Amino acid sequence: VPGIRAYPIETSGPGDVRELRRLLEERIVRAEDVVCILGKTEGNGGRNDFTRELAMTAFEQLFAPRLGCAPEAVQDRVVFSLSGGTEGVVTPHIVVFVRDDATIVPGEKRLAVATGFTRELRPEEIGGMGQIEETARAVREVVARLDVESPADVHLVQMKGAIPPGGGPRCDMVHSRAASALGVAIALGEIDGSRVSDDTVCRDWSLYSSVASCSAKPGLERTEILAFGMSPRWGGDLVIDHGVLVDILDVAGIRAVAGRLGLPMGARDRIVGVYAKSEADPRGTVRGRRHTMLGDDDISDTRYSRCVLSSVLAATLGEPRVYVSTRAEHHGPVGGGPLAIIARVE
Amino acid sequence: VPGIRAYPIETSGPGDVRELRRLLEERIVRAEDVVCILGKTEGNGGRNDFTRELAMTAFEQLFAPRLGCAPEAVQDRVVFSLSGGTEGVVTPHIVVFVRDDATIVPGEKRLAVATGFTRELRPEEIGGMGQIEETARAVREVVARLDVESPADVHLVQMKGAIPPGGGPRCDMVHSRAASALGVAIALGEIDGSRVSDDTVCRDWSLYSSVASCSAKPGLERTEILAFGMSPRWGGDLVIDHGVLVDILDVAGIRAVAGRLGLPMGARDRIVGVYAKSEADPRGTVRGRRHTMLGDDDISDTRYSRCVLSSVLAATLGEPRVYVSTRAEHHGPVGGGPLAIIARVE
Amino acid sequence: VPGIRAYPIETSGPGDVRELRRLLEERIVRAEDVVCILGKTEGNGGRNDFTRELAMTAFEQLFAPRLGCAPEAVQDRVVFSLSGGTEGVVTPHIVVFVRDDATIVPGEKRLAVATGFTRELRPEEIGGMGQIEETARAVREVVARLDVESPADVHLVQMKGAIPPGGGPRCDMVHSRAASALGVAIALGEIDGSRVSDDTVCRDWSLYSSVASCSAKPGLERTEILAFGMSPRWGGDLVIDHGVLVDILDVAGIRAVAGRLGLPMGARDRIVGVYAKSEADPRGTVRGRRHTMLGDDDISDTRYSRCVLSSVLAATLGEPRVYVSTRAEHHGPVGGGPLAIIARVE
Amino acid sequence: VPGIRAYPIETSGPGDVRELRRLLEERIVRAEDVVCILGKTEGNGGRNDFTRELAMTAFEQLFAPRLGCAPEAVQDRVVFSLSGGTEGVVTPHIVVFVRDDATIVPGEKRLAVATGFTRELRPEEIGGMGQIEETARAVREVVARLDVESPADVHLVQMKGAIPPGGGPRCDMVHSRAASALGVAIALGEIDGSRVSDDTVCRDWSLYSSVASCSAKPGLERTEILAFGMSPRWGGDLVIDHGVLVDILDVAGIRAVAGRLGLPMGARDRIVGVYAKSEADPRGTVRGRRHTMLGDDDISDTRYSRCVLSSVLAATLGEPRVYVSTRAEHHGPVGGGPLAIIARVE
Repeated sequence: VPGIRAYPIETSGPGDVRELRRLLEERIVRAEDVVCILGKTEGNGGRNDFTRELAMTAFEQLFAPRLGCAPEAVQDRVVFSLSGGTEGVVTPHIVVFVRDDATIVPGEKRLAVATGFTRELRPEEIGGMGQIEETARAVREVVARLDVESPADVHLVQMKGAIPPGGGPRCDMVHSRAASALGVAIALGEIDGSRVSDDTVCRDWSLYSSVASCSAKPGLERTEILAFGMSPRWGGDLVIDHGVLVDILDVAGIRAVAGRLGLPMGARDRIVGVYAKSEADPRGTVRGRRHTMLGDDDISDTRYSRCVLSSVLAATLGEPRVYVSTRAEHHGPVGGGPLAIIARVE
Repeated sequence: VPGIRAYPIETSGPGDVRELRRLLEERIVRAEDVVCILGKTEGNGGRNDFTRELAMTAFEQLFAPRLGCAPEAVQDRVVFSLSGGTEGVVTPHIVVFVRDDATIVPGEKRLAVATGFTRELRPEEIGGMGQIEETARAVREVVARLDVESPADVHLVQMKGAIPPGGGPRCDMVHSRAASALGVAIALGEIDGSRVSDDTVCRDWSLYSSVASCSAKPGLERTEILAFGMSPRWGGDLVIDHGVLVDILDVAGIRAVAGRLGLPMGARDRIVGVYAKSEADPRGTVRGRRHTMLGDDDISDTRYSRCVLSSVLAATLGEPRVYVSTRAEHHGPVGGGPLAIIARVE
Repeated sequence: VPGIRAYPIETSGPGDVRELRRLLEERIVRAEDVVCILGKTEGNGGRNDFTRELAMTAFEQLFAPRLGCAPEAVQDRVVFSLSGGTEGVVTPHIVVFVRDDATIVPGEKRLAVATGFTRELRPEEIGGMGQIEETARAVREVVARLDVESPADVHLVQMKGAIPPGGGPRCDMVHSRAASALGVAIALGEIDGSRVSDDTVCRDWSLYSSVASCSAKPGLERTEILAFGMSPRWGGDLVIDHGVLVDILDVAGIRAVAGRLGLPMGARDRIVGVYAKSEADPRGTVRGRRHTMLGDDDISDTRYSRCVLSSVLAATLGEPRVYVSTRAEHHGPVGGGPLAIIARVE
Repeated sequence: VPGIRAYPIETSGPGDVRELRRLLEERIVRAEDVVCILGKTEGNGGRNDFTRELAMTAFEQLFAPRLGCAPEAVQDRVVFSLSGGTEGVVTPHIVVFVRDDATIVPGEKRLAVATGFTRELRPEEIGGMGQIEETARAVREVVARLDVESPADVHLVQMKGAIPPGGGPRCDMVHSRAASALGVAIALGEIDGSRVSDDTVCRDWSLYSSVASCSAKPGLERTEILAFGMSPRWGGDLVIDHGVLVDILDVAGIRAVAGRLGLPMGARDRIVGVYAKSEADPRGTVRGRRHTMLGDDDISDTRYSRCVLSSVLAATLGEPRVYVSTRAEHHGPVGGGPLAIIARVE
C-alpha cells in the first residue's frame, strides 16, 4: 500500500538545503518520491519578501538534475508551499513529504497525500463562481486519490490560488483566496453549495471551510491543490487531524486537535507539522478587548497575527516549529481559522 | 487597616483619561489616595515612543488641580509606570491602585503597596555596587512599609532606575536596569550579597531577582520604587503572587502562578493585573529551536519578545489586558523572567 | 495696515513649546495675534502617530489660559497644521505666524494670511460636488480677506478636510483631500469648474490645483482653511511664491520658486517656511527609472516620498527645516505636487 | 591596450539576470572578460537581507557553466559588490564591467580597473595595524596593475573586508570597514601612515580616505579589492573622478565631481555609475539642524541616510540609478563621505 514519510528539517536560512541534499545523496529519500515541501522562511511574508524565491531557487537547483528536468519544471513535479514570516519564536523550517510503498500496514487509517491542479482559470473567473466551481471539481478529483472513507477524513487542503494575468475587478489575492476556500468547503460538503454565489464571496462570513488553507500568487494560471486525509488504504506511521480555532488565542481549540491525535501536552517528539491560518480580528477586538494590530502603520497586522498565533501554538504544543500563514477569508469564523496537526503514531 | 483597591481601565488611546476622570468626579476615587498607575500604551516602547509622554501629560493635567500642585509635581505624589508597546493582542490599559482604609478586614494576607525612592545617584555609581547597595537599602525601607511577615511575601518590585545626567561608562539603561534588579535580589535575600560585585553585573547571569521588574530612564536622578506584597495587616480583597518563567513560552510557569492564586483557567474576571518581563533569548534559540528575533533589522527583538509572551499570557489566562515590558538583565534566568499576577479573592 | 510676522522654531520633541512660551512670556508675541502654527513632528505620519496629539495638548495648555478659553476651544482661535513624519534630515519644527499692525509699509506686495471654515459638511457630500462647491465658496470668502489683486496672488491654501462621522462610500481621507484640492482649483480659477463632476474626482488627474495643500481628519465636521497670498495692502517683510514640481526630484522647479523670491542658493537665512506635497509616483517610475516605494511592506511609501522630496528641498535650499506632507490627489500633476516658499525680503 | 566597457542594467528583482544572459548569449559580453559587477538590490541592507544571496545565486548559475567552474568558484573569477537597500527613488540595478582589448586608443587617460585580495587575515588582526598594513600592501599591488601615473589617479577602491571566523575584540563589521579604509588611505598617500595606530582606529576621525568604499562580510577570510583609476595606458571611452561630500546634502560637492568629468547637469545619458557612502551624522545635526535618524526605533538610520543621499544624487544628476552604501568609518569626514562617478566621454 502507499504510505507517507515526513522529514521535518530546521533551516539556517531560506536557501539552506543541506540536510535535504544529504537525505537525497544518502538515498534516504528519492527525488521522484517527494510529493510536496511545506516550509516557513524568514521574510516579511509580503510583496517584497524574496526569501521564498531564494528558497525556490535552491530547491530547483537541487531537484532539477535529480529529476532530469529543467529548473523551472521542478514545480510541476513537486508541490511547494513556502510561506514567509517567522515572527517571534517561529523556527524557519521545511517538512518534506515523501510517498512510497509503506512497509507498515497498520489496519488503521493513516495519512494520505495527493496533489493536483485546476484547469487554467481566466481573470474574470477569479473570485466568483467560475473559480469556486472549478476549484470544487478539482478538489474532489484530488480527494478521490486519497481513497478516504468520507469527506470528513480530509483534514487539510493547502492551495495556491490562481491569479492569471490580465486583471479584473476581483482578480486579486483576497478574492482568489476566498474563492479557493469556498471551493474546498463545497467539495467536502462543509457548506451547501446552493448558498454560495458571486455575491456571498467576501460578504457572508458564515460560509467557510475548516480544512482549507489558501494563499494566492499573482501570475499563477491554475490553482495548485495539496490534500491531506486519513485513509484505511494507506500505510505508514503518520496521522492527521484538524479543528477550528475560534480566535488567535484559542488554547482549548489547539488542545482539542492535539487530544484527538492522542498527543499529550509537551510531547513534541511526535509532532511532524502544525498548519494554521491567522488573522487580526477585523472587528478590532479579541476576547472583547481592543487590539491595535489594524491601526499600526509601522508593522503590518499580518506579522502581528502570525506572531500571536504562532506563539500560542508553540507554547501550547511545546514546539516552535509551526507553520502559520495569514489572511483567512472564508477560512473558519471571522477572527479565527483552521488548524491541522500531523503527527507520528506512538 | 490600610487596604488597596484597583481599577483596571481600557484606554482608547495614550491620552485617554476619561474613565479615570469619571471615577474622580464621581468621588469613587480620591486623587490623594491614588498610589500608583501602571499602564501599557500603544507606542513602540523605544526611544521615539512619545505615547508615554502623551499619557503623562494627560495624567498631569488631570491630577494637578485635584492635588493642588503644579503639573510637574504630580509625579512626586503618584508613581507612574507606563510601558510602551502593545504588540499583537495586548489591550492598551491602565490599572489605578488606590489606598485607603479597608472596610474588609479579612484575617488573611492581602495586597499591600508602598512606594519610595533611592537617594539621588551619581553617574559613576550607576551599574555598580554604588547603585546596587543604595537600591537594596531603599527597597528594604519601602518593604518595611508593606508590613509583611517575610521577604518571601514581596511579589513584585517595579522600579524606574536612575540614569543621572553626566554620563559614565555604565551610566546607561542596560546597567541601570541590571543594578536595580540586583539591588532587589539582595534586599529580599534572593541572592547572597557577598557574591555580587561590580564585575558580576551583566556577567554572572546566575544572580537574579524573581520579583524585580526594572526599567530605566535617562535624566532620572533617583530610582523610583514600587513594592507589592502580601501582608496580614492590610485589608481589602486583592491578592498577589509571582513566579519565574523559564522562557517566553512557559505555560506551566504561568499556570503555576495562577494556580497559587486559586484562579481557574479562563476565569479572567478576578484578574486585576498581569506583570511580566520578556526577552528574546540571547542564545538564539527557544526550546532548542532557532528563532530569528535577534537578526531582524526591520522589527526590534523587543517588540517580538513582548508580542510572544503577551500572546502566551493572554491565551493561557484568557485575558489580553497584560503588561509585559522588555529587557530583563538579572530578572530571572537568561531567556526567562519574572511574572506577577494581582487578582481579587473569590 | 495689517502685517504678518513669522517665528520659525526648532523643537526638541513634539511637546516642546519652550521657545514659544518664552516669546509669549516676554510679550514678543501676543497669544491673540497668533493666526496659525504649521509644524512637523517626528511621528510616522500615519494612523498610530500620536506626536500630533502630544503637540496639540502642549499648545492647548499654553494658549488656553492666555486666550481665556478652554483647552478644547484653542483650535477655534488658532489654526494648527501639524504634520507627522520628519524622515531623513528633516528638522522637527514649528513656524508661528502672527498678525498685527505692520510698522513697515512697503509699497510692494507682502505676505497676507487669512483663515476660515466651510460650513459643516454631511458625510454623503464628502468627495463629491457637495464638498467641492462648498470648499470653493469658503476659499473665495477667505481669499477675499487677503485683499489680493488677483487669484494669481494666492500661493498656498493649506486645508484640513472634513470627514464627518457617519460614513459613506467616499467619506474617507483620499476623497476628502481630493475634493478639497479641486475646490481650491475652482475658487482660484486654476481649472474650469464645468469640467469637474463627481466622476472626475480621483479619476481625471489633469484637473489639479498648484497651490492647495490638503490633509483630512476623521471626525472633523467642517474643513479648516488657511490661505497665504501676496497683497499690496499688507505690510511687513515677508513674501511668498509657489510653483509646481513635476516630480519629487525636480530641482529646477525648486530653483524656479526660490529664484522668483530672489533667494540665492544657499542663502537660507531669509527662508521662513518651505511647504510641499510629495507622493511616490503611482506609475512605479521616477524619471523613467523603476522605484520600489510602492511594493515595500516594511516601510510605507508615504515615509519614503517625504524623505526623498525633503532631502531634495533641504539640499537645494540648504535648509533642512522643511514641511513636506504626503498624498497629493489633484495636487499638481501625477507624481509631482505644489511647492510654496515663504521668505523675508532682503 | 586594455580597455573597460560597462553595461548598466536595470533589474526587475534581485534574481533578474535576463539582460545579462542576453548579452552573454549574443556574445556581446564574454563571461571570462567580466571583471566585476556592482549592484543595488531591494533588501533592507541589514542582517536579514537575503536579496544579495538571491542575486549571487542567480549570478553563480549564470556564470558557472560559461566559466566552466563550480557555482561556488564564480566569486573567485568575478568580483561582486552587491549592496542592499534601494530606499526612495533608487533603481535596483547592476553595472557589469568588462575588460578586453580597447579598439579606441585615445591618447588621454581612461578608466582602468583591477582586482585582488589580501592574504587571509587572522581574527586578532582585524580592526588593527595587522589588517591595515596588509590592506595597504595589497591595495598597492592592485593599484600597480592599473598602471596609473600617480596615486591621485585612483578614484575608487571598493572593498569587502575580511571578518574571519573565530572572533576577537575588534573582529566585527565596524572595525573591519574602518581598517580597510585606513589601509587604502595609507596605500595612496592620503594620510601619513605614521599617524595611524591601533588606537586611532574608530577614534581619530581626521584620518580618512576619500576614495575607499568598504563593506565587511562575516565569514570572509581575505579582503576583496576592486580599484578604479585613470590611466594613460588604458583605452576605451570611460572616465572616472571622485570627490568628498562634506555631508549628505552636499550638492556643491556632487556638482564639483560632475563638473570635473565635463558632465552638464541633467545630461544623464553619459553616466555609467555613481558610487557614494552615506551616514546619519553621529552628532545629531546636519547643516546645524537637528535630525531624528539616530533615535528612530522603527526605521534604521542606515535606511534613512541612504535614502537622503540617494535622493540628492538622483535629483542633482537627474539619475536615480545610483549606488549608495552606508556606514562610513574613516571614509571622508564625519557625516560626509566619498563620491565617485564613472561616465562616458562625449
